[in-house]
Amino acid sequence: MARSKQQRSVETREAILRAAAAVFEESGYAGASISRILQRAGATAGSLYFHFKSKEELARAVMTAQPETIVPHLASEGLQRLVDITLVWCHQLRLDLTLRAGVRLTTEQTTFGMADAAAPYDEWVAIMADVLETAAERGELQPGIDPKGLATFIVEHCTGMQLYSAARSSDRADLPQRVVSMWQLLLPGIAVPTVAVRIETRPDRFHPTAA
Amino acid sequence: MARSKQQRSVETREAILRAAAAVFEESGYAGASISRILQRAGATAGSLYFHFKSKEELARAVMTAQPETIVPHLASEGLQRLVDITLVWCHQLRLDLTLRAGVRLTTEQTTFGMADAAAPYDEWVAIMADVLETAAERGELQPGIDPKGLATFIVEHCTGMQLYSAARSSDRADLPQRVVSMWQLLLPGIAVPTVAVRIETRPDRFHPTAA
Repeated sequence: MARSKQQRSVETREAILRAAAAVFEESGYAGASISRILQRAGATAGSLYFHFKSKEELARAVMTAQPETIVPHLASEGLQRLVDITLVWCHQLRLDLTLRAGVRLTTEQTTFGMADAAAPYDEWVAIMADVLETAAERGELQPGIDPKGLATFIVEHCTGMQLYSAARSSDRADLPQRVVSMWQLLLPGIAVPTVAVRIETRPDRFHPTAA
Repeated sequence: MARSKQQRSVETREAILRAAAAVFEESGYAGASISRILQRAGATAGSLYFHFKSKEELARAVMTAQPETIVPHLASEGLQRLVDITLVWCHQLRLDLTLRAGVRLTTEQTTFGMADAAAPYDEWVAIMADVLETAAERGELQPGIDPKGLATFIVEHCTGMQLYSAARSSDRADLPQRVVSMWQLLLPGIAVPTVAVRIETRPDRFHPTAA
């Protein structure tokens, strides 16, 4: 059966996004050119500009796609779900080009001065705060722990962890161990004791595959 | 009294380093040129290459100078000293060009692939682990807290905090409040209760001046 025009348009948009992620991941924002993205996607300039107004809008779409590379892999709830976000994230950072490009762009953009540069961080904070609200309702958090404040803390920490890890080796080989260490240090101070002991933090809890 | 030749050499080296910090801070590693650094320092190429072999060596010297912009301002010991490092750091990041350039280069260098990219992080970990060894000897830390592990955690967190803060606003206006929030979340889990209550975390504890 022939694909509909709309279906082809969705596929073209996805091919352009994947190509953009690959080029941004390899060359960064400044080094990426629209012509290389077109060549890699096998698309025309007309179809690219139909979907994205500019290189900045393409970069923004790649940054915004970060949660889509992680959230579908989650099955747990409450505090375990928050831990699982970080475990899937550190796996996917090695497998998923779109996530790696999104993280690189988010780190770089402070330098190239994109408008609303904090948006990708804020989006992660909103997702994690939502998960922590559920954890609080389930009685998993210690009294006085503010979901939004803790979510901000986790986003700050994950940002720094992946950067230090990438400075150590380009494949971020020690990132899973850093994630485990973070939770070992944090859990006793944020979770009620009965929950803290049953949260699983093994990095091999997930074996997600590339998108 | 005429300055000695050695004194003039030290002054030239410092002028070149300050100029390099200003240019790196403004334009990043890729955008900085030796000719602009020379122009700003009012120095000759011969004197620059006498002190520094390459742009990379200049960048490394700027990154390595980070602790010098902070450690001289400290007077406390133990856990309070660790807290004070982070309080002075978030003040100085707004005042001290050399520190700001060092932080920018450290963040960027993963991208431009400098050898031994983790060294500036490792140096901070060593400084903080040393301070935490003293805290442990003074009985300030809870049992099971590993000085090196906690020092790594603080460096990871400060890295992410300043990046998120810089994405929010280029002058990192909310960084002092982020530092306070970090300690409010961490102290109950790492310090013994009698110490946790007397650690001061007010951001206005220090008013250091530019170097």
